[in-house]
Amino acid sequence: MLRVAIAGASGYTGFELVRLLDRHPHAELKMITSRVHRGQRLDKVYPALRKHCDLVFEEPDPERLAAEADLVFTALPHRAAMDMIPDLLKGGAKVVDLSADYRFLDAAVYEAWYEPHKTPELLKEAVYGLPELHREEIRNARLVGNPGCYPTSVILAAAPLVAGKLADPRTLIADSKSGVSGAGRGVSLTVHFCEVNDGFKAYKVGEHRHTPEIEQELSRLAGEKLAVTFTPHLVPMSRGILSTVYATVIQGVTPEDISAAYESFYRNARFVRLCRAEMPTTLQVRGSNYCDIGWRLDSRTGRAVLIAVIDNLTRGASGQAICNMNIMCGFPEDCGLQDAPWQP
Amino acid sequence: MLRVAIAGASGYTGFELVRLLDRHPHAELKMITSRVHRGQRLDKVYPALRKHCDLVFEEPDPERLAAEADLVFTALPHRAAMDMIPDLLKGGAKVVDLSADYRFLDAAVYEAWYEPHKTPELLKEAVYGLPELHREEIRNARLVGNPGCYPTSVILAAAPLVAGKLADPRTLIADSKSGVSGAGRGVSLTVHFCEVNDGFKAYKVGEHRHTPEIEQELSRLAGEKLAVTFTPHLVPMSRGILSTVYATVIQGVTPEDISAAYESFYRNARFVRLCRAEMPTTLQVRGSNYCDIGWRLDSRTGRAVLIAVIDNLTRGASGQAICNMNIMCGFPEDCGLQDAPWQP
Amino acid sequence: MLRVAIAGASGYTGFELVRLLDRHPHAELKMITSRVHRGQRLDKVYPALRKHCDLVFEEPDPERLAAEADLVFTALPHRAAMDMIPDLLKGGAKVVDLSADYRFLDAAVYEAWYEPHKTPELLKEAVYGLPELHREEIRNARLVGNPGCYPTSVILAAAPLVAGKLADPRTLIADSKSGVSGAGRGVSLTVHFCEVNDGFKAYKVGEHRHTPEIEQELSRLAGEKLAVTFTPHLVPMSRGILSTVYATVIQGVTPEDISAAYESFYRNARFVRLCRAEMPTTLQVRGSNYCDIGWRLDSRTGRAVLIAVIDNLTRGASGQAICNMNIMCGFPEDCGLQDAPWQP
Amino acid sequence: MLRVAIAGASGYTGFELVRLLDRHPHAELKMITSRVHRGQRLDKVYPALRKHCDLVFEEPDPERLAAEADLVFTALPHRAAMDMIPDLLKGGAKVVDLSADYRFLDAAVYEAWYEPHKTPELLKEAVYGLPELHREEIRNARLVGNPGCYPTSVILAAAPLVAGKLADPRTLIADSKSGVSGAGRGVSLTVHFCEVNDGFKAYKVGEHRHTPEIEQELSRLAGEKLAVTFTPHLVPMSRGILSTVYATVIQGVTPEDISAAYESFYRNARFVRLCRAEMPTTLQVRGSNYCDIGWRLDSRTGRAVLIAVIDNLTRGASGQAICNMNIMCGFPEDCGLQDAPWQP
Repeated sequence: MLRVAIAGASGYTGFELVRLLDRHPHAELKMITSRVHRGQRLDKVYPALRKHCDLVFEEPDPERLAAEADLVFTALPHRAAMDMIPDLLKGGAKVVDLSADYRFLDAAVYEAWYEPHKTPELLKEAVYGLPELHREEIRNARLVGNPGCYPTSVILAAAPLVAGKLADPRTLIADSKSGVSGAGRGVSLTVHFCEVNDGFKAYKVGEHRHTPEIEQELSRLAGEKLAVTFTPHLVPMSRGILSTVYATVIQGVTPEDISAAYESFYRNARFVRLCRAEMPTTLQVRGSNYCDIGWRLDSRTGRAVLIAVIDNLTRGASGQAICNMNIMCGFPEDCGLQDAPWQP
Repeated sequence: MLRVAIAGASGYTGFELVRLLDRHPHAELKMITSRVHRGQRLDKVYPALRKHCDLVFEEPDPERLAAEADLVFTALPHRAAMDMIPDLLKGGAKVVDLSADYRFLDAAVYEAWYEPHKTPELLKEAVYGLPELHREEIRNARLVGNPGCYPTSVILAAAPLVAGKLADPRTLIADSKSGVSGAGRGVSLTVHFCEVNDGFKAYKVGEHRHTPEIEQELSRLAGEKLAVTFTPHLVPMSRGILSTVYATVIQGVTPEDISAAYESFYRNARFVRLCRAEMPTTLQVRGSNYCDIGWRLDSRTGRAVLIAVIDNLTRGASGQAICNMNIMCGFPEDCGLQDAPWQP
Repeated sequence: MLRVAIAGASGYTGFELVRLLDRHPHAELKMITSRVHRGQRLDKVYPALRKHCDLVFEEPDPERLAAEADLVFTALPHRAAMDMIPDLLKGGAKVVDLSADYRFLDAAVYEAWYEPHKTPELLKEAVYGLPELHREEIRNARLVGNPGCYPTSVILAAAPLVAGKLADPRTLIADSKSGVSGAGRGVSLTVHFCEVNDGFKAYKVGEHRHTPEIEQELSRLAGEKLAVTFTPHLVPMSRGILSTVYATVIQGVTPEDISAAYESFYRNARFVRLCRAEMPTTLQVRGSNYCDIGWRLDSRTGRAVLIAVIDNLTRGASGQAICNMNIMCGFPEDCGLQDAPWQP
Repeated sequence: MLRVAIAGASGYTGFELVRLLDRHPHAELKMITSRVHRGQRLDKVYPALRKHCDLVFEEPDPERLAAEADLVFTALPHRAAMDMIPDLLKGGAKVVDLSADYRFLDAAVYEAWYEPHKTPELLKEAVYGLPELHREEIRNARLVGNPGCYPTSVILAAAPLVAGKLADPRTLIADSKSGVSGAGRGVSLTVHFCEVNDGFKAYKVGEHRHTPEIEQELSRLAGEKLAVTFTPHLVPMSRGILSTVYATVIQGVTPEDISAAYESFYRNARFVRLCRAEMPTTLQVRGSNYCDIGWRLDSRTGRAVLIAVIDNLTRGASGQAICNMNIMCGFPEDCGLQDAPWQP
């Protein structure tokens, strides 16, 4: 049994990791940490987990974590991850980091959007944890930077088009819509029920930190440096992201060309389902690691309109993290991730 | 492997049965039927199930069903169940019926609330499928009448109090609140999003068909014929039922008496979790077979206030049906029902 | 024009007062105060009010308030109201208090549920601001204790039955369900969107402070001291309260007796609408001062089941406060409150 | 008093017209028609309107309508409007049509997206009812084609940019998100609560009928024929539309240029509020005729990102219709539309 631990286990992504690990045949959760909740039982913070987990939150101590676990999931805010991860690696643990700290190839980009990176040398070995793009590297990695939720949906939506050079990547626009769990479990007026319910809004327009991440991966696929317009919005729902991605197709590209590109690119993708007849809804992927993708070619304007849906907590965070763990540790990719999405 | 089939598989309870059976280690879904959707793939009606089920809806044919399956779940409207079930039994299949048709001991009660019963002789052998009350009978049954959703929550809430003779059962009042999936997937103005969203209402006040079912089971526990006031309400949420049950306690009964009664009654209940400190919310049992119960003794009025929460599709229907199947077929009771509830 | 002011104007009840006063033909809002937001424009805190109100929050200063306004609405937490109101009265202003501080006849009751009352002598002259019960006293009052939201719905639901001696008042049970704006605009995990959305729960079972208020008014109508079981619940909606009230009717009471009692009691009630055919939903009273009431006599158990719906911010707070102001100042009772509820 | 009537008054836009007309100082609602509900009281279909409207639905009879009313609102499906409106005009009534039938200048465009137009000659005199663009023509019109909801938000968002030639209009993309009341009150699986709640989806991608309407008005402003990519989405909320509009700005255009363009274009717009600091949310315009617009210049990509919010039933339909009526009949533009939006 692989021994795993979660640092920063008290938020929604922490909960989701515990929920999924509870049914993983080869991984056993040995330790959870939280500064704020140390000494408390997890099932006191999340009564849903009674009879499923009787762990108690401990002080975040990298040495103990690395001793107790073969692999550690770090579900910490950015910077806190940078502080802890080097010691985890030193202690011999593999790490899947759910923060932004190890997603970037270029420390300068991280610095432009966040702050100076404390361990830029580790960025070289860290692998961006999107299996459809970097499966082999993930297999050999000891440190995986788990992708952000929005970027997961946008990159998967656009990748075949960009890699297949079927569109002009400089025309890429990503209009994303997310449920509120993406904001985390912290309290603020922004997530007050009455400020969200029955309403809709855009936020961080032109300034969301997921922008450079989207650009990094799509640039790698395009073979040129791209700037993408990315606009996030808040939907009055708990889980889910739908990204609508626009790109002007190259002259002469047909719907069949696009079909072929998606089917080819995702031929072996266990967790991508292509939708031809009906556009996907976020309700069809909840609690799962699926990214469902549909698309249309708007011939009147020559633009492709791509629709990708994920569950922001599962494929957008914890499910993808466990998928990466499976790849890193030699388990079948979908181990512990085989449950069908729930409806309604 | 136990071969199972679902008659009437296109509604929400049908979906929930498929979702849960997908991960059941000892049962294999062989056949699904639906008059309306015959010829269609299930994963066309529910895209969530792509890569999880490739069955096609067939015509409801009891002979074929009994030939293809060892156990059939009938998720049909009342009366349609009565029409089909005798033939399923004749064909040698075991049956777990999700309708009201085989829940009652007394055909006269069924007739008073529904219509004349077509096979009253079968009522004698049918077992009311609430494991906490009738586990042994379920074990030996070939026909189980799966309980209604509201009754499951109300009966489990009140049972220890009534069985322990700690309250006057003639003062029982059940005020229940349910999510909209309990109404089924049929279309009507009542379930139009705009008629439900952001609002709350009571319905079928004093006339809901779950009343006699609640009375039957609590009367058996009380040892006397009871009439219960039951009021259902509609909550703008998809899944969940919370029942608030009131009863005047017998003079001298203390909180410790009540605690002891609940702990004792549910000592071996795999799927009941007692809540002492915090009252349970429907969010902590979603997608699971749990019934979480909390209570308070209102000393100012001498009334016990019991709060029980379930997921109406899981414990209130399909999860409980699979639990009954497990008991009938000799599997561990929680086989295929071991997933933690999801949050948020 | 009557000059009015709002102390504590930054919460939802404050917003609702501003929204309604904006269209009041005889009242003009002159001043708003808020400790936290002083110096800020109201329409910065609530962009909805741009072009409707250009007031700036000022420091809460009772002398200034009483100088600027003929009538002051105090929308402050309990105790803060007690601190300020004597000075407002001294300054010559009339006061409608939205807190609990001046709702009680008996300081001892206030002390048992809140804390020692600072100005018990004022309790004698304060009038409980439920017009259907105390219209004449309100007319002559200079200090009105505006009722709590839950109590408004429960008292109006039960009053005709209790006053008409048609039920045994010792059997009264109030099961209430409220939208989240009743919790106010303060931030906490309890009102985090993801902790509320798509779920339902009970809270403060047997201990909610609205209990003594309900008991006070129903006791006055019954002519005897009553204890009532009151259970509040949280609904995933923004506005609205539905209270389901149970009482065992006196032997021999018929549905016609109950009809007659309600029609008679509310004959002149501008803001009560009786529902006979269909039970009311919270969606039919939003933004209005209406309390819609329906009922059924459950003959099987001899209990009356009463359903009352209100908008917790309007009839449950600010709309009722303006209605009280109208009565106190000699305006038609429905002045500024004539808009139809909105749907959906 | 202007006598008005509503043909097709039983849907949500019909309700909204009644609600707003109820408080209009110069208009009196004399007659409402509905094929399906004829003979029924309006306040039976919408209990919210009890004590506000005691009209009974009548058979849709153009002669009677034109006799009873000076101005008729036609809230009918497309085609039904075309059938009735010529007779209304003949009868001397003015008409504000809420369908698509009289929005188009070019019958060929209407035919391409709907069906052959029955009265193309009337298209010449019909005026597109967007006051910010066509106020003077509306003033002199006897037939106004009230704009669609999505187009209202998109056109108002983009107009200053397009008219001011600050962007390349061929790069226009409109990504719109709407609440469910936009789908109307008809029943279908699409609007079943459980199919919408807690989820998000795109629909009619590249094929929505509002596309040609958006293109018509923006082409007029641009002075060239445009094709626009328009993608609608469904939000789990009752009211509201937020449109995110993208356009590549002309080289050299600065944020100050854009500011100046919006402030100038909407200088006299009673119902447009420009948001500089905070992007607008749909919650700040509910029940009102406001269109709130915010924007950002994404300098990294040279794109303007425009955010416009409206209430789809008010500014997107009935509020705008009443505004048009005010203009046509010489009332102040905001007559009967002066209520502040409600929150929460």
